[in-house]
Amino acid sequence: MNLSRAKYRILVLNGPNLNLLGVREPSVYGNMTLTQINQVLLEEGLKNSAELRFSQSNHEGVLIDTLHEAQTWAHGIIINPGGYTHTSISIRDAIVAIGLPTVEVHLSNIYTRESFRHQSLIAPVCLGQICGFGWRSYWLALHAILGHLE
Amino acid sequence: MNLSRAKYRILVLNGPNLNLLGVREPSVYGNMTLTQINQVLLEEGLKNSAELRFSQSNHEGVLIDTLHEAQTWAHGIIINPGGYTHTSISIRDAIVAIGLPTVEVHLSNIYTRESFRHQSLIAPVCLGQICGFGWRSYWLALHAILGHLE
Amino acid sequence: MNLSRAKYRILVLNGPNLNLLGVREPSVYGNMTLTQINQVLLEEGLKNSAELRFSQSNHEGVLIDTLHEAQTWAHGIIINPGGYTHTSISIRDAIVAIGLPTVEVHLSNIYTRESFRHQSLIAPVCLGQICGFGWRSYWLALHAILGHLE
Amino acid sequence: MNLSRAKYRILVLNGPNLNLLGVREPSVYGNMTLTQINQVLLEEGLKNSAELRFSQSNHEGVLIDTLHEAQTWAHGIIINPGGYTHTSISIRDAIVAIGLPTVEVHLSNIYTRESFRHQSLIAPVCLGQICGFGWRSYWLALHAILGHLE
Amino acid sequence: MNLSRAKYRILVLNGPNLNLLGVREPSVYGNMTLTQINQVLLEEGLKNSAELRFSQSNHEGVLIDTLHEAQTWAHGIIINPGGYTHTSISIRDAIVAIGLPTVEVHLSNIYTRESFRHQSLIAPVCLGQICGFGWRSYWLALHAILGHLE
Amino acid sequence: MNLSRAKYRILVLNGPNLNLLGVREPSVYGNMTLTQINQVLLEEGLKNSAELRFSQSNHEGVLIDTLHEAQTWAHGIIINPGGYTHTSISIRDAIVAIGLPTVEVHLSNIYTRESFRHQSLIAPVCLGQICGFGWRSYWLALHAILGHLE
Amino acid sequence: MNLSRAKYRILVLNGPNLNLLGVREPSVYGNMTLTQINQVLLEEGLKNSAELRFSQSNHEGVLIDTLHEAQTWAHGIIINPGGYTHTSISIRDAIVAIGLPTVEVHLSNIYTRESFRHQSLIAPVCLGQICGFGWRSYWLALHAILGHLE
Amino acid sequence: MNLSRAKYRILVLNGPNLNLLGVREPSVYGNMTLTQINQVLLEEGLKNSAELRFSQSNHEGVLIDTLHEAQTWAHGIIINPGGYTHTSISIRDAIVAIGLPTVEVHLSNIYTRESFRHQSLIAPVCLGQICGFGWRSYWLALHAILGHLE
Amino acid sequence: MNLSRAKYRILVLNGPNLNLLGVREPSVYGNMTLTQINQVLLEEGLKNSAELRFSQSNHEGVLIDTLHEAQTWAHGIIINPGGYTHTSISIRDAIVAIGLPTVEVHLSNIYTRESFRHQSLIAPVCLGQICGFGWRSYWLALHAILGHLE
Amino acid sequence: MNLSRAKYRILVLNGPNLNLLGVREPSVYGNMTLTQINQVLLEEGLKNSAELRFSQSNHEGVLIDTLHEAQTWAHGIIINPGGYTHTSISIRDAIVAIGLPTVEVHLSNIYTRESFRHQSLIAPVCLGQICGFGWRSYWLALHAILGHLE
Amino acid sequence: MNLSRAKYRILVLNGPNLNLLGVREPSVYGNMTLTQINQVLLEEGLKNSAELRFSQSNHEGVLIDTLHEAQTWAHGIIINPGGYTHTSISIRDAIVAIGLPTVEVHLSNIYTRESFRHQSLIAPVCLGQICGFGWRSYWLALHAILGHLE
Amino acid sequence: MNLSRAKYRILVLNGPNLNLLGVREPSVYGNMTLTQINQVLLEEGLKNSAELRFSQSNHEGVLIDTLHEAQTWAHGIIINPGGYTHTSISIRDAIVAIGLPTVEVHLSNIYTRESFRHQSLIAPVCLGQICGFGWRSYWLALHAILGHLE
Repeated sequence: MNLSRAKYRILVLNGPNLNLLGVREPSVYGNMTLTQINQVLLEEGLKNSAELRFSQSNHEGVLIDTLHEAQTWAHGIIINPGGYTHTSISIRDAIVAIGLPTVEVHLSNIYTRESFRHQSLIAPVCLGQICGFGWRSYWLALHAILGHLE
Repeated sequence: MNLSRAKYRILVLNGPNLNLLGVREPSVYGNMTLTQINQVLLEEGLKNSAELRFSQSNHEGVLIDTLHEAQTWAHGIIINPGGYTHTSISIRDAIVAIGLPTVEVHLSNIYTRESFRHQSLIAPVCLGQICGFGWRSYWLALHAILGHLE
Repeated sequence: MNLSRAKYRILVLNGPNLNLLGVREPSVYGNMTLTQINQVLLEEGLKNSAELRFSQSNHEGVLIDTLHEAQTWAHGIIINPGGYTHTSISIRDAIVAIGLPTVEVHLSNIYTRESFRHQSLIAPVCLGQICGFGWRSYWLALHAILGHLE
Repeated sequence: MNLSRAKYRILVLNGPNLNLLGVREPSVYGNMTLTQINQVLLEEGLKNSAELRFSQSNHEGVLIDTLHEAQTWAHGIIINPGGYTHTSISIRDAIVAIGLPTVEVHLSNIYTRESFRHQSLIAPVCLGQICGFGWRSYWLALHAILGHLE
Repeated sequence: MNLSRAKYRILVLNGPNLNLLGVREPSVYGNMTLTQINQVLLEEGLKNSAELRFSQSNHEGVLIDTLHEAQTWAHGIIINPGGYTHTSISIRDAIVAIGLPTVEVHLSNIYTRESFRHQSLIAPVCLGQICGFGWRSYWLALHAILGHLE
Repeated sequence: MNLSRAKYRILVLNGPNLNLLGVREPSVYGNMTLTQINQVLLEEGLKNSAELRFSQSNHEGVLIDTLHEAQTWAHGIIINPGGYTHTSISIRDAIVAIGLPTVEVHLSNIYTRESFRHQSLIAPVCLGQICGFGWRSYWLALHAILGHLE
Repeated sequence: MNLSRAKYRILVLNGPNLNLLGVREPSVYGNMTLTQINQVLLEEGLKNSAELRFSQSNHEGVLIDTLHEAQTWAHGIIINPGGYTHTSISIRDAIVAIGLPTVEVHLSNIYTRESFRHQSLIAPVCLGQICGFGWRSYWLALHAILGHLE
Repeated sequence: MNLSRAKYRILVLNGPNLNLLGVREPSVYGNMTLTQINQVLLEEGLKNSAELRFSQSNHEGVLIDTLHEAQTWAHGIIINPGGYTHTSISIRDAIVAIGLPTVEVHLSNIYTRESFRHQSLIAPVCLGQICGFGWRSYWLALHAILGHLE
Repeated sequence: MNLSRAKYRILVLNGPNLNLLGVREPSVYGNMTLTQINQVLLEEGLKNSAELRFSQSNHEGVLIDTLHEAQTWAHGIIINPGGYTHTSISIRDAIVAIGLPTVEVHLSNIYTRESFRHQSLIAPVCLGQICGFGWRSYWLALHAILGHLE
Repeated sequence: MNLSRAKYRILVLNGPNLNLLGVREPSVYGNMTLTQINQVLLEEGLKNSAELRFSQSNHEGVLIDTLHEAQTWAHGIIINPGGYTHTSISIRDAIVAIGLPTVEVHLSNIYTRESFRHQSLIAPVCLGQICGFGWRSYWLALHAILGHLE
Repeated sequence: MNLSRAKYRILVLNGPNLNLLGVREPSVYGNMTLTQINQVLLEEGLKNSAELRFSQSNHEGVLIDTLHEAQTWAHGIIINPGGYTHTSISIRDAIVAIGLPTVEVHLSNIYTRESFRHQSLIAPVCLGQICGFGWRSYWLALHAILGHLE
Repeated sequence: MNLSRAKYRILVLNGPNLNLLGVREPSVYGNMTLTQINQVLLEEGLKNSAELRFSQSNHEGVLIDTLHEAQTWAHGIIINPGGYTHTSISIRDAIVAIGLPTVEVHLSNIYTRESFRHQSLIAPVCLGQICGFGWRSYWLALHAILGHLE
C-alpha cells in the first residue's frame, strides 16, 4: 500500500448497518449519510495534518481483515462496531493483536437503549469511548486520537 | 433488479447450516432438502399471487447485505436465522433498518432444546414467530405474512 | 360424549381474560371477539374435515379438567393459555399426561412485551408455538395441527 | 346488576386465606375478622358518598371473573390479592383489561417477610400500593381511591 | 361434619393431574391408580387407629378450601400438591393458617427432574418431605404423621 | 428544643430533589410545591391534635442528623427518602437506631419505573409503605401514623 | 467380609457431626444418641429379615471408602451425609459408582434452614429423600429401602 | 446571580476525590491538577463564546445543590461524578429535574477497571459519555456540549 | 495543623450513626459510648507512643474531606465506615488516593447480619479487617496498625 | 476433490486472528508462526499415516463453509475457533451437522484469562478439549484424534 | 486428657497448606513458619494466664475430630480454616455443635484475592473475623478471644 | 525418599472413585482399570527418560499431603482430581504452594455432563487441561508435561 506523507494516518472503520445512515430512522441516527460524515472527517483531518481512510462492512470477518491490514499503514483507529460491539470477541482480539491506539464511537447513547447494548466488549481494549453525540461523536473521536498521538 | 408483476414479493432467507437440510439429522430436521421446501413455497406463493425469492448463506454479513438489498424490491420477509437467532444483534438491527414486515421461522421447537436456544434476539423485531412444525413452519409463515400484507 | 364422524376432532382452549377479546385494548389484541374468531376457525375446520370444539375459562383448574376430558374424544389441541403460559406447571403436566399433540398460540408477539412473558412453561411440551399474528395465529395453528395429524 | 345511586361504587376484593382473618395468627394479621373490616369500610364509604361491595375467594379464576364483572358497575377497585400477588399474571392482565383505577392493599408489611413476597406483579398496574398498617391499610386505600376519583 | 371416634383423623389431599395416576406414564408414576393407593392407605390407617379421608382436585382454590375445612376435623395432613408445589404461595399460606402438622409427598424423586421442580414452596411449612418411592411415599408419610402425633 | 403541647409530634422528612416539586416534571410529580403539600399536612395535623415539623435536604448526612435529633421530640416519622430509598443503608440504620414508628412515602408508583427503584432499603424497617398517590400519599401517611399511635 | 444369611443387608452411613447426636442442640436434633437410633433400627431390621451395619465418620474420604466397600456385601444404603450433602460431588460419584439403591435421610427439615442447605447434590442419585421427622426419618428410610428391594 | 453576556454558560462540576488530581496516582490520572485543567477549559471556552464556571465537592448533597442552582443560569453541564457515578440515584434525579443538556466525563477508561465501575447510573440521562482520554476528556466534552447547543 | 512529637499519629474515623453508641440497641453494639471507646484508645495509644485523633460524621462528604486532610499529618487510619461500608465507592477512592495504611473495623460481626452487609467495598483497599468484638475491635485495630507501622 | 491414499485425512482449522501468530504478543502465544506449526503437524501426520490439510479464516461463515466441505473428504477435525469459541452457535451446529470427530484446541489456558473466555460453546460437541500448551496443544490434538480413529 | 491449671485453655487450629508457611510465597504469607508463629502465641498466652495447644491438618475430617475433642478441655478456639473457609459446611456445623467461642483468622486480606475467597461459611458462626495482618492476625485473635472470655 | 536417576520424575495423582475404573460404568469411563492405565504410562515414561510414581486416594487431605511431599522429588504433576475438581480450593492452594508444573486430566468430556462439572477450580493454576479422550487423556498429559519440561 502506498503510504502518504501525512503526519498521521487514521482508519475510520464502520460496522454493520451503518451504510444505511441518513436514510433510515433519522430521529435516532440523524440525517447525515455515512459519506457526508466521512467528508466532514476528511476535511477536519486535513486541517490537522492527518490522512483518513474509510471502510465499512457488514461482515465481521472483513472488519477483522481490515484491522489486520491497518497494522501496515495506520497510526490509529476510529471504530464504530455497530451491533458487533456487544458480541464480537474476535474484533476485540484483533484490536489487541495489532496494537494500535483505538477509539470506540457510537452515534446514539447506547446506555439509553436496550440492556444488551449496555455492555461493550470493545471498550476495555480501547483508549476510550465516545457515544451519544450523533455525527459529532466521530469529530470528537478524531480529536481524541490526534490528541493522544501527539 | 427486475421487479415482477406479482402482487407480493417475499424474500425467504435461510441462515447457517440450513443448506444441509434433508441430509443430516433427519430425525430432528426432517427429510426434505432446502430446495424441496423452497419448491413447495414457490408453488404456494404462485397460488396466492406472490413471488418468492430464496437465499441462503452461512455468513452473517451476507445475510445482512441480502436484507439491505431486499428493501429495494420486497414487501415482506420470512427468515430462519439458524444459530444467529440467539447471537446476532446486527441482523436484528438490519431488520429494523429496512422496516419490512418479517416473520421468524424455525423447523424445530427451539424451546425443547438447549437453554441458549430459548432466547431469540430476532423475535422482538418481527411480526411474530413460528417454530416446531418442520417444513410446514415455512408454509405457515408464508400465510402469516400474506395475511398481514392484506 | 357423542363422537362425531369428522376425520379430526380438535379442542380450541382459551385461558384467562380471552373472553374479553374485541372489547378491550383493540390496539393490542385486535377487534374480533372470541366468538368471531371461533366462527372463522369452525368454518376453516369444516373445509378440512375437522370438527372443532371451543372452551374458555379463567380458572386454571377448569382448563386442566377440560384437557383431561379431551383425552376421551380429541385428536389434537390448540391452546392459548393466556397469563398461565408463564406460571402453570400444572397445565404443562396435564398436556404431557393426556399425550395429545398440542399447539401453543398467542395473539400478540410475547417477545415484545414484559420480560416475564418471554418464557413459556407450555412451549417445551407442545409441537410448536405460533405468536404475533392476531386472530390469524389461530388459523395458522389449525393448519399446523392438521398438517401434523396427516 | 342493580346500580345504586351512590356517587362512587367500589369493589373490595380479597384473595386466598383472607376469609380466616381474626382467627389465626392475630399477632401478624390483627384481631379483626374480614366481616368486621368490611363493616368499618362500609360505614366510612357511606360517609363519603360511596357504596362498597365485597367479595372474597380462594380461587384465582373466581377473582378474575369478579374483576371482569366489576367493569359493568364499579368506579374503582381495592384489592388484596393475598398469595396471588406474587404469582398471578392473569389477575394483573384482568386489571389492565377492565381499565378501572385499582389500589393494592396488604395488612402486613410485605417487605419485612420472606423475599418471595417482596415483588408484586400487581403493583405496576395499580395507582399505588399501601401495606403494613393492618386493617387501616384498607381504610387508607378507600381514601386513596376516593381522592383519585375526585 | 360428623366426627368419627378414630384416635387420629388424617386428610390425604392430592393436587392437579393425580386423578390420572395408573393410566398414564406408568414408567414414571407406577401402575397403581389413586383409588388403589387410597385403599392401601385406608387399611394401613385402620391398623393404626387412624381414619383417613381423601380428596383430589385440579383447582388451586378447591385445595385451599379443603385445607381450611380440615381445620374443623383433622389432626394432620398428607399433601401431594403436584404442579402447585413449586408455584402456590396461597397453598403454603393456607397450611400455615390452619396450623395442622403436614407432610409433603411426591411419587417421583423431584430432584432428578426439570430444575423448576427442585424448589418446593410447601416444604418449608411442613414437618418434612418424602419423595421418590412411588405409592410407598404415601405409606411412609402416613407413618411419619402418626409418629409425630404420638 | 421547645416541646409543644400537641398530643402527637410528627417529623415530615423529605430527601433529595423534593425541593423542586411543582416546578419540574408536573406530569410525573404533580403541580403542588413542597410548601403547599406541607401546608395541607399541617392543617390536617391540627385537626387531629398533631403538630408537624418539616425538613428537606439533598444531603444524606443531614437527613441522618435530622433523624437523630427527632429522637428528642417526635412520636413518629413520615419520610420520603427520594433517591436514597434504594442506596442508603445509613438512613436505614438511623431509623432503626432512633426506634420511632416510621412510614415511607413516595409520590409516584415506584413499581412502574426503572427496575433499580423497585427495591427499597428503607421499607423493611418501617411500619409500612404508601406510594403512587401524588401529594395524597403524604395525607394517607399522616393518617397511617396517627392510626398507629392511637 | 463374612456375609450373614439375612435376606437384606443394609448399610446405615452417617456423616460429619452426627456422632454428637443427643448431646448438643436437642431442640433441633432431638434427645436420642446415634447409638440409640441405631439400636431402634437394628431391631426394626430384624423384624423384617434385614441385617443392618452402621458406620459414622467425619471424613469425606472415609465415607467414600465405606461406600466402595459396601458394594461387596450390601443390598442397599441409608445415608445421612450431614454437611457433605451440599458440597460433596465425590460422595455423589461414589453412590453412582457402586450402583446400590440408596435413600437420603435428614433429621431436620433442611428446607426450613439456611438457603445453602436447600440444595442436595446427593438426592438426584438416590431413590428418594426423607427429611424432617427426627429419628423417625431413619425408621421410614428403612421401610422405604425394604419396600424397594421387594 | 449575575449573568454574563457569553453566548453559552456551562457548569463544569467535579465530584469526590477530584480535588486531589495531579498529586496522587499520576500514572492513572495524569499530572495536571484540577486547577490546570479548568484553566485550559476556560480558555477554550472563551475562544468559543462560552463562559465556564467550576465547582468541586466531595459531598453528594452539595453536588445536587449545585446542579439545582445551575438551572438559574447555565445552558449546559459537564459532570465528572467520580465515585458517585455508580451509586447516586439522587444525582441522576437532579440532572433529570433541571432538564439541562449534560455530558458525563471520566479521565480514565472506566471499562478497564473494577467491574463495579462498568455501570453508570448517570449516563442514561446524559447526552452522551466520554471517557478514557485524561484531561482531554473534558476538552472533548466542551466541544460536545457546544456542538449540541448550536 | 500542629504536628505532635508522637512516634505515630493515627486517625480514628467513625461513620454514620456511631455517635449513638451506648444509647441504642446495647444488645447489639454494647454499652460503651463512642466517647468512652475513644478514651480507652487514647490511653492505649499513649502507652505505645501513638497520638490518636478522633472524628465522627454522618456525612459521606465530611468523611472524605477528613481522610484527605489526614494525608497531611497521620501515619495510619482506623475506620469504621458504618453503613457506607457497603455503598461508598468514594470513600474507597479516598483511601486509595491518600495512600495511608488503613484498618477497617466493625463492632458487630457483619457476616451474621443482613446479606447486604456481607460485602465491603472498603476492605479490598485496607491492610485488613477486624469485626465482631465490640469495642475491643478498635483496641485490636490499634495494635494491628501499630504492628504494621513497626 | 482429489482424495489421497492416506489412512486418515484430518482438517486443521484455525479461526480469527490466528494468522497473526508468532508476530504479536509472543509472550502469550509463543514465537512460532501458524505456517511453522502447520509444518510440524504435517510431518507428525506423515509419520502416522495421516494427511493433514490446513485452513484459516477470520470469517465465521468461511469456517462453516469449510466444515461443510470437510464432510466430503476428512476423517476428523482439529479446530481452534479463536474468539468464536465463546459466541458461535453456528459453528457448533456445523460440527454437529457434519458428524465428524472433532478436537478443540487452544494455545493458551483459557481458564486463566477473562471470564468470558471460560465457557466454550464448542467443547460440548467435541470429543474433548486441549488447552494451555502453546503449539504443543495441536501436536497433542493430532495424537488425540488419531488415537480415537484407531 | 490431662487438664492444666491455666485460667484459659485455647485451641489454635490450622487447616490445609498452612504447614508450608514460611517456605513458600513469602511475599504473600510472610517469612515466619507455623512453628515460629505458634511459639510467639505460646509465650503471649503464658503472659495472659492462657495455655495454648496447637494442631494443623490438611484433612477436613481431622479438623472436625479435633474440634469435637476440644469440647472436653478448651475454653475457646482460634481457627484458620485455609481453603475450607469457603466450602466446609461440616466445619461450620462442628463449631456450632461444640458451642465454644471461636475467632476466624487469616494471614492475608482475603478480600483482595479471588472472588471465591470473599465469602466465608465459617464467619457467621464465630465471634468475629480478623484478616490481613500476617502472623499478627493470630496475636490479635488471641487477645480478642481472651478479651471475650473475661 | 530415594531419588532415581531418571531425567524427569512425574507424580500421577488420582482422586476419589478413580480406584473403581474399569469395573463400573465402562460406557462412560472405558474398560481399562487404573492399574492398566498406570502400566501404559509407566512404559511410555520409560521410553522418554521419565520415572512415574502413582498415587490414588478418596481423601482430600491425603491428596494434599501427597502433593506437599511431591515437592521433595518430582519435576511435574499429572492430576485427575475427580469430584474435587469443582469444590476443592485446598487442592488448588496446594498446587500453587508447591510450585510444580501441573496438568489437569479427565477421562470424560466434563463439558458434556452436569453443569456443576463445567467449572474447574484447578484449571486456572495448571499449565493446561486435557479432557474427553478416555485413558488417552493421561497419555497426552504425559507428553504435555514432558514437552513443557524440555
